[in-house]
Amino acid sequence: MNILVINCGSSSLKYQLIDMKNENVLAKGLVERIGIEGSQIKHETIGKEEVKIQEAMKDHKRALELVLNSLTDKNYGAIASLDEIQAVGHRVVHGGESFADSVVIDDQVMKAINDNVEVAPLHNPPNIMGIEACSELMKGVPQVAVFDTAFHQTMPEKNYIYALPYEYYQKYKIRRYGFHGTSHKFITEEAAKLLNKPVDQVNLITCHLGNGSSITSVVNGKSYDTTMGFTPLEGLVMGTRTGDLDPAIIPFIMDKENMNPNDMNTLLNKKSGVLGISGVSSDFRDLEDAASSEHRAQLALDIFEAKVRKYIGAYYGTMDHVDGIIFTAGVGENSISMRESIIAGLKNLGLKIDSERNNVRGKAQLISTDDSSCPIFVIPTNEELMIAKETLELTK
Amino acid sequence: MNILVINCGSSSLKYQLIDMKNENVLAKGLVERIGIEGSQIKHETIGKEEVKIQEAMKDHKRALELVLNSLTDKNYGAIASLDEIQAVGHRVVHGGESFADSVVIDDQVMKAINDNVEVAPLHNPPNIMGIEACSELMKGVPQVAVFDTAFHQTMPEKNYIYALPYEYYQKYKIRRYGFHGTSHKFITEEAAKLLNKPVDQVNLITCHLGNGSSITSVVNGKSYDTTMGFTPLEGLVMGTRTGDLDPAIIPFIMDKENMNPNDMNTLLNKKSGVLGISGVSSDFRDLEDAASSEHRAQLALDIFEAKVRKYIGAYYGTMDHVDGIIFTAGVGENSISMRESIIAGLKNLGLKIDSERNNVRGKAQLISTDDSSCPIFVIPTNEELMIAKETLELTK
Repeated sequence: MNILVINCGSSSLKYQLIDMKNENVLAKGLVERIGIEGSQIKHETIGKEEVKIQEAMKDHKRALELVLNSLTDKNYGAIASLDEIQAVGHRVVHGGESFADSVVIDDQVMKAINDNVEVAPLHNPPNIMGIEACSELMKGVPQVAVFDTAFHQTMPEKNYIYALPYEYYQKYKIRRYGFHGTSHKFITEEAAKLLNKPVDQVNLITCHLGNGSSITSVVNGKSYDTTMGFTPLEGLVMGTRTGDLDPAIIPFIMDKENMNPNDMNTLLNKKSGVLGISGVSSDFRDLEDAASSEHRAQLALDIFEAKVRKYIGAYYGTMDHVDGIIFTAGVGENSISMRESIIAGLKNLGLKIDSERNNVRGKAQLISTDDSSCPIFVIPTNEELMIAKETLELTK
Repeated sequence: MNILVINCGSSSLKYQLIDMKNENVLAKGLVERIGIEGSQIKHETIGKEEVKIQEAMKDHKRALELVLNSLTDKNYGAIASLDEIQAVGHRVVHGGESFADSVVIDDQVMKAINDNVEVAPLHNPPNIMGIEACSELMKGVPQVAVFDTAFHQTMPEKNYIYALPYEYYQKYKIRRYGFHGTSHKFITEEAAKLLNKPVDQVNLITCHLGNGSSITSVVNGKSYDTTMGFTPLEGLVMGTRTGDLDPAIIPFIMDKENMNPNDMNTLLNKKSGVLGISGVSSDFRDLEDAASSEHRAQLALDIFEAKVRKYIGAYYGTMDHVDGIIFTAGVGENSISMRESIIAGLKNLGLKIDSERNNVRGKAQLISTDDSSCPIFVIPTNEELMIAKETLELTK
């Protein structure tokens, strides 16, 4: 059974074709600059050369058409015909309060995803375009929506209601939703296996640290609290996103700089984070390279790490017990020095990293000492596989 | 040596006259509705009846004049003449980066306080009015400024720089300042005595929980991190203030409700917090009374407590060791149930409250069990005494 996993951004489309018999990726690729001059596909069938297809793509439908052609191409394709794709799984950013689980897409589901554009005006529209393109080009193939927010729908009210006038929750659904749910859920299931415990009995702190970052407090296998909020802006410092701020700073800057809400969103989401602090880069590898000569590059790393530690401390303290702390995603899986530094600053919790075990990138491994107060692991995330698994589960 | 302590708000003036020989309060009072119809003074000389003086007061100077008359009144006064006041100590909210300590006021200091109006447009102007009134009415009496922010000027850069473009720090001095510094400092000194340790060797988590609330991580007697930020809005949920929010919520609401930055400030500072959540009250006693019948009153308390726990966990985890956790201010000193509930939710840190010891209001007492991972105390704060002490120190 082959599942096509699709993740649409406003001008991009990422895809993987996964054979669920053995969870092998058959092909994968990325379409960039959809609707913009210079659009192209990078397509790779595993075991074959990567190909680049440069061709005008006016919309997501045209992009998907070329992706499907690539997948079935005689020379660089992975399958003989589209009949070999049994279902499509879509990453959908915002399920709002409508979805606590993945769901097979029908008209009612589409209506609900459309309703959630209100709370995710930047994120849901491209996901909708991707689903509509599939509906037209792959008639009869079941489609599943897997929401970034769904895993966090188990949070208790006290962790999702903001201290705003309550009517803003009622009127505009302003509350903490949390994101990266597919990743936190995947990691939770993998960690349960490593810990040899049933998923519904594991308590974890899952640290998804990448260009976007979030930490989740997982209690009995369910999301109990998470750092991202109404949008993916809150919480940790990120590549270009502020994370937490004194809310009063925002009207202050808007007033001083005569900015409108849209300008402010751009500033907070695109120009801030470690890029804003350092003035060097939003990429943590660049910052690590620059840190010895550029004070603000080191400062950006220090601020990032300090914030990660505070959230680990916050969740560690407020859980009854912790079975494991997990690092995942680009930075979490690959930055040996970052993990070492984060844990070194948490010795009051009894956490201890083992430098030798920690000398690992991108593979599942215990990295704590045997006398650490709880085990610490690196576990590579795989959101595409998680989406494929949920899609298989709902369509088989 | 008698010190007059003055704390001016935009339409209020609080004062205490303290005899520093024995730290006894001789008289105290509150002027309300300055510049508004119905202005009045409530004045009390200790050991005498409280008096109310209702009289039009067009500005802080007229208010101070009536206060000085009250202090020297033959019937309800505390001193025979103004010559018995040796110095005046003023609470000043925002010292910006200019002041890491209290300071005797001269022209240069006044200029710096005025410069900081930029970052504290709501708070510094009334403090300046109070100082100017004293200069005119008490010529030759030395005046000292004690800043709410000064104690926190020891925070390391990684705890005060926000993940915004760095030029906003350079251009507008947007950074974390922290507030309630006078209280956190007072509590730190008191705790050191109780712990029988030199102040510069104590590590504490000081929880100032009142209508405004903040928590400070104190390392070696100095502020290392604190929950309030650029303004006193950030951090914990408060009576009417939001505390931390997803920053993206602010442009979202401004856009939906067509609000300007000023409207937004009012919403965030005056209409939110436990009042906004509950719809009942900003006063925690009212919420405790209403909690059994009003779900949202209980929810407001739960959210407040959850946030306090998270910050205690964050600071506990990131300090090398903790010598004590301190509860102070209105809620911290008086709400037995709140303290019990907060600590009960932190058992993973090994913190344990002793219900019998915790059965205390408004007096210094150990409230943890002997096997708690660190001692927990109630210590009443006394910002006026702290201001008087600093004033004495600088003028004697």
